[in-house]
Amino acid sequence: MKQPFPFSAIVGQDDMKLAMVLTAIDPSIAGVLVFGERGTGKSTAVRALAGLLPPILAVKACPVNSADIKDCPAWCEISDARVQSIATPVVDLPLGASEDRVTGALDIEKALTKGEKAFQPGLFAQANRGYLYIDEVNLLEDHIVDLLLDVAQSGENVVEREGLSIRHAARFVLVGSGNPEEGELRPQLMDRFGLSVDVLSPTNIDERIEVIKRRDAYENDHEAFIAHWQSEDATLRARIVAARAALADLQTADSALRRVAELCIALGSDGLRGELTLLKAARAFAAFAGDEAVTDEHIRKTAVLALRHRLRRDPLDESGSSSRVARTVSEILGD
Amino acid sequence: MKQPFPFSAIVGQDDMKLAMVLTAIDPSIAGVLVFGERGTGKSTAVRALAGLLPPILAVKACPVNSADIKDCPAWCEISDARVQSIATPVVDLPLGASEDRVTGALDIEKALTKGEKAFQPGLFAQANRGYLYIDEVNLLEDHIVDLLLDVAQSGENVVEREGLSIRHAARFVLVGSGNPEEGELRPQLMDRFGLSVDVLSPTNIDERIEVIKRRDAYENDHEAFIAHWQSEDATLRARIVAARAALADLQTADSALRRVAELCIALGSDGLRGELTLLKAARAFAAFAGDEAVTDEHIRKTAVLALRHRLRRDPLDESGSSSRVARTVSEILGD
Amino acid sequence: MKQPFPFSAIVGQDDMKLAMVLTAIDPSIAGVLVFGERGTGKSTAVRALAGLLPPILAVKACPVNSADIKDCPAWCEISDARVQSIATPVVDLPLGASEDRVTGALDIEKALTKGEKAFQPGLFAQANRGYLYIDEVNLLEDHIVDLLLDVAQSGENVVEREGLSIRHAARFVLVGSGNPEEGELRPQLMDRFGLSVDVLSPTNIDERIEVIKRRDAYENDHEAFIAHWQSEDATLRARIVAARAALADLQTADSALRRVAELCIALGSDGLRGELTLLKAARAFAAFAGDEAVTDEHIRKTAVLALRHRLRRDPLDESGSSSRVARTVSEILGD
Amino acid sequence: MKQPFPFSAIVGQDDMKLAMVLTAIDPSIAGVLVFGERGTGKSTAVRALAGLLPPILAVKACPVNSADIKDCPAWCEISDARVQSIATPVVDLPLGASEDRVTGALDIEKALTKGEKAFQPGLFAQANRGYLYIDEVNLLEDHIVDLLLDVAQSGENVVEREGLSIRHAARFVLVGSGNPEEGELRPQLMDRFGLSVDVLSPTNIDERIEVIKRRDAYENDHEAFIAHWQSEDATLRARIVAARAALADLQTADSALRRVAELCIALGSDGLRGELTLLKAARAFAAFAGDEAVTDEHIRKTAVLALRHRLRRDPLDESGSSSRVARTVSEILGD
Amino acid sequence: MKQPFPFSAIVGQDDMKLAMVLTAIDPSIAGVLVFGERGTGKSTAVRALAGLLPPILAVKACPVNSADIKDCPAWCEISDARVQSIATPVVDLPLGASEDRVTGALDIEKALTKGEKAFQPGLFAQANRGYLYIDEVNLLEDHIVDLLLDVAQSGENVVEREGLSIRHAARFVLVGSGNPEEGELRPQLMDRFGLSVDVLSPTNIDERIEVIKRRDAYENDHEAFIAHWQSEDATLRARIVAARAALADLQTADSALRRVAELCIALGSDGLRGELTLLKAARAFAAFAGDEAVTDEHIRKTAVLALRHRLRRDPLDESGSSSRVARTVSEILGD
Amino acid sequence: MKQPFPFSAIVGQDDMKLAMVLTAIDPSIAGVLVFGERGTGKSTAVRALAGLLPPILAVKACPVNSADIKDCPAWCEISDARVQSIATPVVDLPLGASEDRVTGALDIEKALTKGEKAFQPGLFAQANRGYLYIDEVNLLEDHIVDLLLDVAQSGENVVEREGLSIRHAARFVLVGSGNPEEGELRPQLMDRFGLSVDVLSPTNIDERIEVIKRRDAYENDHEAFIAHWQSEDATLRARIVAARAALADLQTADSALRRVAELCIALGSDGLRGELTLLKAARAFAAFAGDEAVTDEHIRKTAVLALRHRLRRDPLDESGSSSRVARTVSEILGD
Repeated sequence: MKQPFPFSAIVGQDDMKLAMVLTAIDPSIAGVLVFGERGTGKSTAVRALAGLLPPILAVKACPVNSADIKDCPAWCEISDARVQSIATPVVDLPLGASEDRVTGALDIEKALTKGEKAFQPGLFAQANRGYLYIDEVNLLEDHIVDLLLDVAQSGENVVEREGLSIRHAARFVLVGSGNPEEGELRPQLMDRFGLSVDVLSPTNIDERIEVIKRRDAYENDHEAFIAHWQSEDATLRARIVAARAALADLQTADSALRRVAELCIALGSDGLRGELTLLKAARAFAAFAGDEAVTDEHIRKTAVLALRHRLRRDPLDESGSSSRVARTVSEILGD
Repeated sequence: MKQPFPFSAIVGQDDMKLAMVLTAIDPSIAGVLVFGERGTGKSTAVRALAGLLPPILAVKACPVNSADIKDCPAWCEISDARVQSIATPVVDLPLGASEDRVTGALDIEKALTKGEKAFQPGLFAQANRGYLYIDEVNLLEDHIVDLLLDVAQSGENVVEREGLSIRHAARFVLVGSGNPEEGELRPQLMDRFGLSVDVLSPTNIDERIEVIKRRDAYENDHEAFIAHWQSEDATLRARIVAARAALADLQTADSALRRVAELCIALGSDGLRGELTLLKAARAFAAFAGDEAVTDEHIRKTAVLALRHRLRRDPLDESGSSSRVARTVSEILGD
Repeated sequence: MKQPFPFSAIVGQDDMKLAMVLTAIDPSIAGVLVFGERGTGKSTAVRALAGLLPPILAVKACPVNSADIKDCPAWCEISDARVQSIATPVVDLPLGASEDRVTGALDIEKALTKGEKAFQPGLFAQANRGYLYIDEVNLLEDHIVDLLLDVAQSGENVVEREGLSIRHAARFVLVGSGNPEEGELRPQLMDRFGLSVDVLSPTNIDERIEVIKRRDAYENDHEAFIAHWQSEDATLRARIVAARAALADLQTADSALRRVAELCIALGSDGLRGELTLLKAARAFAAFAGDEAVTDEHIRKTAVLALRHRLRRDPLDESGSSSRVARTVSEILGD
Repeated sequence: MKQPFPFSAIVGQDDMKLAMVLTAIDPSIAGVLVFGERGTGKSTAVRALAGLLPPILAVKACPVNSADIKDCPAWCEISDARVQSIATPVVDLPLGASEDRVTGALDIEKALTKGEKAFQPGLFAQANRGYLYIDEVNLLEDHIVDLLLDVAQSGENVVEREGLSIRHAARFVLVGSGNPEEGELRPQLMDRFGLSVDVLSPTNIDERIEVIKRRDAYENDHEAFIAHWQSEDATLRARIVAARAALADLQTADSALRRVAELCIALGSDGLRGELTLLKAARAFAAFAGDEAVTDEHIRKTAVLALRHRLRRDPLDESGSSSRVARTVSEILGD
Repeated sequence: MKQPFPFSAIVGQDDMKLAMVLTAIDPSIAGVLVFGERGTGKSTAVRALAGLLPPILAVKACPVNSADIKDCPAWCEISDARVQSIATPVVDLPLGASEDRVTGALDIEKALTKGEKAFQPGLFAQANRGYLYIDEVNLLEDHIVDLLLDVAQSGENVVEREGLSIRHAARFVLVGSGNPEEGELRPQLMDRFGLSVDVLSPTNIDERIEVIKRRDAYENDHEAFIAHWQSEDATLRARIVAARAALADLQTADSALRRVAELCIALGSDGLRGELTLLKAARAFAAFAGDEAVTDEHIRKTAVLALRHRLRRDPLDESGSSSRVARTVSEILGD
Repeated sequence: MKQPFPFSAIVGQDDMKLAMVLTAIDPSIAGVLVFGERGTGKSTAVRALAGLLPPILAVKACPVNSADIKDCPAWCEISDARVQSIATPVVDLPLGASEDRVTGALDIEKALTKGEKAFQPGLFAQANRGYLYIDEVNLLEDHIVDLLLDVAQSGENVVEREGLSIRHAARFVLVGSGNPEEGELRPQLMDRFGLSVDVLSPTNIDERIEVIKRRDAYENDHEAFIAHWQSEDATLRARIVAARAALADLQTADSALRRVAELCIALGSDGLRGELTLLKAARAFAAFAGDEAVTDEHIRKTAVLALRHRLRRDPLDESGSSSRVARTVSEILGD
């Protein structure tokens, strides 16, 4: 199989790339929602992310990628405590995957051949400590999106059916993509994604040509192209690892908290998820920037990502939600 | 797994906290309906409640948490009468739990391997003597809500299918939460919840900052934070236990009954559930306050909780139902 | 389990109580339809009825409660002819009971373990010679209501599926309750219920206080309350037993038949079920009153119960159907 | 079980009784459609018919009631050629009978226990050489009615599924009843019923009283009542038997055929089923009357039964279809 | 079982009879669509056709009626190459036949008892080299009609499911009948039938009487009637056999092709199925007429049958499609 | 079975033929969408394509036609590395094929008989390295089309259900045909097809006659006709093989990339699939033409095929999308 397209080789699309980097630094930022027209490279970007992320250490054969044998759920029945380095899981929810395959379910084979009620882990187990990617999230039925968000938020997968009563860690970043022309998510579901970005086709002709050239090189001169961009990816990966380490010691002054709260009140965003996410995003950005404390600049740079999908629709304000956030940021933080 | 967020550490939301405390004192108050916008901490509060409630004594291995072996249903086949102290059960109805897992059903494993028609208890069994929490109750189909309310009200779970004919105690407090923007419950279903509360995001900036700070401390300085608030929870738990004991000796004068009935007639609330619930809520509140008899003050403080979701819509009265209840309370009980 | 609320302790609701007593005297009166707002005690009344009814003699272990072993259906395979006294069955159709559990179905256990096609009796069998209660009958699908009414009317349950061809006696009184605000029954279905009543919340404050007091005593002083009212229930039960015995010898003059027919023609009720039911209700009432022949007074007292749900809607007559029946009764029978 | 209500004891309803008698004389008249309001005794009449019909001779144990062992389908595996006298089958399609039970299906028991693909005959087999009664035919789904009519018309039941390929004789008279207020049959389905009648509640008070009295006697003085009317039924049965025998020798002049065709053309009834059915009905009526040839009088008496459900709706003619047929009969045959 | 009604004894309906004869001469004319009101004898005609067609030679026991053992599909496992004469299959798609029975499916019996994945042929197999008749084709779901047409057109049945991958010859003429008042076929489906005819009830009284008389004779004097008409059927059958033989040597001048194309262009019929079918129909008609080359007259006589269901609706032309075809034929071919 | 109609013998339809040839030269051009009215020969063309394509070398018995044993998926369990020459697979998605047969699924036979969870490959496996043809693609449900496109685009089939977790190469060209009068594809689905063409019936009479003549010769003089056209197909096949070889060395100047990008920006086509596909199509065309570098002429000739189905609807521009593309091509590339 071909290597995925390198993350660094994506032309433009800075918002989308930043949002993904921030979740790589702090996975507790609850997922990314990527909206864009057809053909703008949403899927390519997520698949590229898989190649960028640092590897993790996981117990061999543990179906939920536990870091330590004491974290393995009882039903694993694992006795070998050795760990190995594996790629951060980026699990793709394939079109038409059944709910059973997602949550895990009764292992039919064992049930039939041994008469045992064993659990067969699903995609939630595979995605633990990594990413779960759903293409066309806005075309899924609400109850499935709800399920994905619930598990992503609680970090735990609970299966209560067919006589099973199973739970296991399922901490992953949810990345959803969709085409806004094909339908919207309910505001309640959008609110539960941490960040959101819009991606557009480039309108600059040279940028378009650059996209085509890189795509062409990727297809027709695959190995040279990969070799060239792998070192760029490695540099970015090193910055992510450093930022993760820096996060714990990062200072957050009360004035930063106040800035964040003022912004959210001014924007009238419902609930408190906006504040919490913006705070995390600003911190992750500060750590990525190599700074030691959160400043207005970090808040300014991440406010649109964290808040634009949380605004109530304002019938008197024709401007899009990104501009409304940006304008309020200017008013409160200055330009 | 992390400890839940401490109940006492919840900023504001006094109505919701009071409603939950009252049901902890008198579980025969038939449940709480919590309505609020996204991100207002509804789920957090219910999960916090689990940490607050006093433990109960239950027969070891009894699937319905019976207090005494003579209460165990026959199908338990339990012979060991010893009891142990367990946490009050707070059972979460997971999204997508099948009706079978809720009510209990035929034990497929036993059916297949032993040819026996045994009963496998469900969430109703687990929740006996505790709480059952349903998030997004307004998105459930009516017949499921009906089932939950029926069992909650009768205190008994009856399973009549697949050739089973089973009944067992299922006395629990039902807590339902929902976002009113996403759909309403039928008035008939609302009426069967004992109390209801509306929760709102705080609009005061200092309160919002306090929420963020506590949330942040909970996530990033978990153990110190839990330790700090556990003693506050313990104090509250002691008051609940004392109030439960005081309830039996509490005086209820006929004049209090008359006040309650006058209020309900003045408000035009249908049926008699309003009176019965308000009486119970006022009593629980009196016991919580350490008073020896129910007074107008106790009725005043609990009337909105018990009656606001039982009013007929009045097209000529634009004010919300909470204000209508409050106004009538002022008129009848004075301010 | 607690004793049900005593029938005699129900405050007011005279129509509903009378309707139930009449069906207890003559079960061939085809059921009662109880309509009323939420919280008016419909379910309580039906459950109370179970405590009021006289016991019956039934063959031990007979799944259809046969009075004599020669009435047991062949599939019972019962050889022990001894009878015992059991409470009159009052079977509650639980929400979500499957059609299989209602009609009875193939016994899966026997089919799987012994390869035999045996019949497992359902709720229709259990309810034979007693009552079948359906809450929220107006929310059921028409075909289910149809099935319930068909079996209630024919007194026989016929199961023709899964290769079974079974019939057994299923003579029971059907009691359906519903909230008219939540939907109506088709006129064709209403017509097949014998009697109907409307129940309302009391508007008199002292009556309401009395309801609350009794309810409170029932919950908090259970045993004393039950003891107090049991003797009242016993008196009523004795009158029912006496009336049943008197029914056979009761005189029905042709003039009474004519009165009944005149009433129905004047009201324009379709079909002849109105006449037949009113005749039976008047007779049962006469027997209950201890009279020896049916008089105009008995017809007057039962006409509304038997006819109000059988009128065509009259767009020029704004008054409710109870008043229309009452007015016609006055015109024909005098006041 | 009680005897059914005697056919002769039905008060009035002459059209319905005549239609049933005609099909008893010539079963190739394709069924009867009985429309009427609720409570007009439609079901009673069909059940009464069962008691009226002459017995038939059938091979013992033959599931399709064959008259001779050479008519038994191969899958019967019957070797005993003896015949016995049985009541003419009147099979009631119970509400909720599955399509499998109607057409017959794979015998699951044999499939599971012996691994054989045997046929288990259904209601079509039971009804062979008799009647099949469907209550509320207008509430059935079209494809089921279609199936019933197809089999009734072809006289053969063909089962092509689950690997079965079975056919057997299924010659029966289809009787469908329905309440026109609850929905109509498609004209194409109505056309395939031979005769149709409307039944109404009697409006004459003495007739109504007579209905009540007989009904009352049937319920409360069952045996005497049955004994009284059985002899009337026996007389009628004898006339039916005689008419059947006379049918073969009955003369039908060309002028009678012409009358029938003139009537149908004048009425504009589609297709030729009207003519064929009217001819058969008139002949059966003539035989029942003891006449030797079909006359205008016989046509006059049966024209409404055979034609009223086959007219196109005429927007300019407000009169009902029965009157339109009657008027045309007067114009063409004279009064 | 009775003999079917003889084809030759059908009164009138010349178009329908001609269309069927043409497909009997050249089965590659893709089926006939028969539209008509209820009761016009559509089904009778198709069943009559079965009695008319010449027998075929087929390998004994071959489930697809192969003419030679080398044509038998591998899954037949037939080793006996002897052929026998059988009636041309006319298979009736029974109402409610499952898709499995139509296409053939996994043989459940063999799967369960021998663990083998064998194919059980369906109606497509039975109909090979004959006719498949569907009553009420316009009431079937589109995807079923599509399936029938696909197989009819390709002459091959492909089964790709339940792990089977089977193909066998399925060359048959599809005859569909329907009542246009009950719904239409999509133009795309109509276009795939070769010929179409409208049938009407006769309006001439003598013709109607003749229909009744023949029908009556068929029912009441069955054997004499069949004997009389069998010789007419034999004559017609001989003409069909002769026409089949003559077809190969029939001349088709380029001018005839041009006539056909001119007609279709003038009528604006979409696609090229119109031309191809008209050419085949005209040839079959020429062969039936005993002529040696296709002439304008043959085209004239078959144009309506082949083209009337292929016209686009023309909102400015109120005349029916038959008249539009006839008018264009007159314009181009002269009268 | 008959040989398919020869590709070269198709009269006219140059666009469709060119689109198919281009995908034969470069299969990474993502499929062809063929829209046209009924009867325009869409299916014939795809079936003809199967006869035109050059054979491939594949491992014997490999279910996914792998070129080399090291490409065989593990579940094949193939040990024989020998390859053989086979026809390029052209797999027809039969109407009613189940999703299981398309993606492959659990092998029921092995599961039942051996208790093994083996994979049974489906049509995606069969189509690897070839074509997958779907007739009436616009009538399929969106999620199926999505699945087909996803697999076609990723070149990999992922099956995650029934406890299976399987992936295998599935690189094929998707050809979909449909009638635009019967429904449209969502723009998002259309965008994912590489090329699209409209086919129309010829309006020229001689061309129509030629079609009929060839069709007639194909049916009635099959062998001579096939022999005649096979050599034409062989010539075309040789050109395709040569073009494939030339593709790798073909020059693409930056100016060609710029032309392509200018065209797409001018047309306002969303995303970048338009550019990428047009570039590939122009290259394949250049190779087919025997040229050594891509020129404006090659872009001009393929622009309509690659772009016409990617335009936004322009309410002010009434001309069809083909003309809009052609006009913009003229403006930018000159005529």
